Amino acid sequence: MTASVSAPALIALDWGTTSLRAYLLGADGVALDTRASSAGIMNLPAGGFDQAFEETCGEWLDAAPLPVIAAGMVGSAQGWVEAPYVETPAGPDALVAGIVTVKAARGVAVHVVPGVLEQSALPNVMRGEETQIFGALASEPSLGTSGGALIGLPGTHAKWAFVGDERIERFYTFMTGETFGALRDHSILGRTMHPSATHDEQAFIRGVDTARDAGHAGVLATIFTTRTLGLTGQLTGEQQPDYLSGLLIGHELRGLNEVLTREHAALAGKTLRLIGNDALCDRYRAALARFGCHDAPTVAQATEHGLYRIAALAGLVAAPVRTA
Amino acid sequence: MTASVSAPALIALDWGTTSLRAYLLGADGVALDTRASSAGIMNLPAGGFDQAFEETCGEWLDAAPLPVIAAGMVGSAQGWVEAPYVETPAGPDALVAGIVTVKAARGVAVHVVPGVLEQSALPNVMRGEETQIFGALASEPSLGTSGGALIGLPGTHAKWAFVGDERIERFYTFMTGETFGALRDHSILGRTMHPSATHDEQAFIRGVDTARDAGHAGVLATIFTTRTLGLTGQLTGEQQPDYLSGLLIGHELRGLNEVLTREHAALAGKTLRLIGNDALCDRYRAALARFGCHDAPTVAQATEHGLYRIAALAGLVAAPVRTA
Repeated sequence: MTASVSAPALIALDWGTTSLRAYLLGADGVALDTRASSAGIMNLPAGGFDQAFEETCGEWLDAAPLPVIAAGMVGSAQGWVEAPYVETPAGPDALVAGIVTVKAARGVAVHVVPGVLEQSALPNVMRGEETQIFGALASEPSLGTSGGALIGLPGTHAKWAFVGDERIERFYTFMTGETFGALRDHSILGRTMHPSATHDEQAFIRGVDTARDAGHAGVLATIFTTRTLGLTGQLTGEQQPDYLSGLLIGHELRGLNEVLTREHAALAGKTLRLIGNDALCDRYRAALARFGCHDAPTVAQATEHGLYRIAALAGLVAAPVRTA
Repeated sequence: MTASVSAPALIALDWGTTSLRAYLLGADGVALDTRASSAGIMNLPAGGFDQAFEETCGEWLDAAPLPVIAAGMVGSAQGWVEAPYVETPAGPDALVAGIVTVKAARGVAVHVVPGVLEQSALPNVMRGEETQIFGALASEPSLGTSGGALIGLPGTHAKWAFVGDERIERFYTFMTGETFGALRDHSILGRTMHPSATHDEQAFIRGVDTARDAGHAGVLATIFTTRTLGLTGQLTGEQQPDYLSGLLIGHELRGLNEVLTREHAALAGKTLRLIGNDALCDRYRAALARFGCHDAPTVAQATEHGLYRIAALAGLVAAPVRTA
C-alpha cells in the first residue's frame, strides 16, 4: 500500500471484458492501493459479479464503508447492470445523469457509469473510454476548450475522440489491434512470420510510411506486401509482425487524417493526447511523428482521474479531483 | 466423359494450395473430361505429387501418351518444382520461356507455368491467375488491345490485373476473402453474427454503399459498424455476414477506383471482366454496379483456355485455342 496522508474516500472500478482493475482512492483522488484481477465480465468466477467484487474490494469495504463507482463493460447488456448509452455530444453531467446502480450482496450500491453512443451512418459506441477521456480533461481542462483536442486510445478497438466544449463531440473506432491479431494468427501472413523478442523500429516505420505514402488503395491492398516483401527478400520473418503493425497503425492514422482533411484540418495541426499502455502509446507516437505530429503525450492515470471526477460530480465524494 | 469429335491432345492441370483440377483437352481446346481432387500442394497424399498426379491423370495417360501442362502453386517454392516468377509487364511468350519441367515417376514431363511478379514499392505476386488471364485474352483478344482492360479475379486473395498490349502490365492483390474469414471467425464481429442459408442482397448492398459513400477513414474504421448497426437494431445477426462481405468488397472497389482516379480514370469507364466462381462473381457484379459499372461479364473456361493457349505457344499441341 502506497504511503499517503489521505484517508480512503472512494472505490473506483475499471471493469472490462477481460480484466477488472480496482482503485482505492483518497480524498485528493490519488490511488492509495490498487488490485488487478482477470475477472472481466466474460471471465467471471463461479459466484459471478458479486464474488469478483468481494475478492477485489471486500477487504477495503471491511475496513471502512466507501462509495463505489465503476465504468466499462460492467455496464453493458452482458454486464452486472445495464447502464444505457448516453448520446454524443456527451459531457460529464450526462454521464452522471446516466449512472445506474446495482446493489452488491454485501448491501453496498455500485454506481455504474454509462457508455457513449454516436448515432450516425456509422454508429459508434464506447464503454470505459468516456471515463478515461474525462479523466484527461480533469487533469488538463484546457484540452476541452480552446479549439478542442483529439484524444487517441490505442488498443484492440482503438478510439479517437474529438473533444471540445468540455464534451465528447464524436469519435471513431478503428479495429486495428483486433485486425492485427486476426491476420497474424489466422491468415497466410502469419505463416512466414517468426516471433521476435525485440521491437524492430525500422520495420514498423516502413509499414507506417507504406500506408502513408502508398496506401491509397486501402489496407486490403497493402497487407499482402507483408508476404511479398518477405518473398522478395526485403523483410525477414522476424520483421514481418512489426511491419504489419506499422502498416495497420499507419492506415488508421491515414484514415483519421483523411477525416480531418475533409474538414480542412490535418493531424499535424491538432492538439493530441494518448491514453493507454506505455509500449503501445510509444508505437503510436512514433507513427504520429511520420504524419508530422511531434507532440502527443500520454495522459497518466486517466482512468482513476475520470472515475474520481464523475464520482465527485455525482456527489459520491466531496472533493473535486486534483488538477495538474 | 463428354461426347466429342476431338481426340485427346493435352492434359492441363490447375494445381493450387488446396485443390487440384485436371482437364483432358481435345485438339480444339475443349474439355473432354475433368477431374477434381482435394490434393492441393498443402494437402497431398502420402505419395506426394506423383501419387496425386497418378490418381488424377493416370488413366488418361494409360490410354494415350499426352503432353502435360500445369499452373498454380505447383510451381512455387513449396511446389513440385519451382518455376521462378517472370516480371511484369508479362506476355504469354515470357510465360512460355519461363516454363520449368519436372519428370513424373511414370516418365512423362510435366510443364509448369511460372507465376508473375510485380517489383514495386508494393510488390505483388500471382500463380495461376496469369494463366486464367491469358485464357480470357485467348477467348476475347480485343481485351488485350484497344485501350486495355481490367480483369478481376475475386477470391481469398482477389487480384485485379491491368492488361494491355497483350500483356499483364501490373496488378493488385486485395486480401478481401481471407480478411473476411479472419474477422468473421476470429474477431468480436463474429459473436453477434448468425449463419444464414440465404444471401441477403439488401444487407450486402448496404455494406458496399457504406464503403463507397462513407469509407474515407478506411476499412479499419468501418468494420466496427457491423457490430454497432446490430447494437442499434439496424442489422440482424443473419444480415451481419452479408453486410461485412459487402463492406469489404466495397472497400476493395473503392481502393481500385482511387488507383484509377489518380490516373484520371474511373472504374465506371473501364472495360471489365471477371474470372471466378459464379456466386462470387455475381456478388462482385452487384457491387460494381454501385460504382457505375454495369458490364462486367464472367469469362467462362478461362483456366482451360489459358493452359491450352500456353501449351500451344510452347509447341506442346499443334492447334491454337479456339477463339470465341
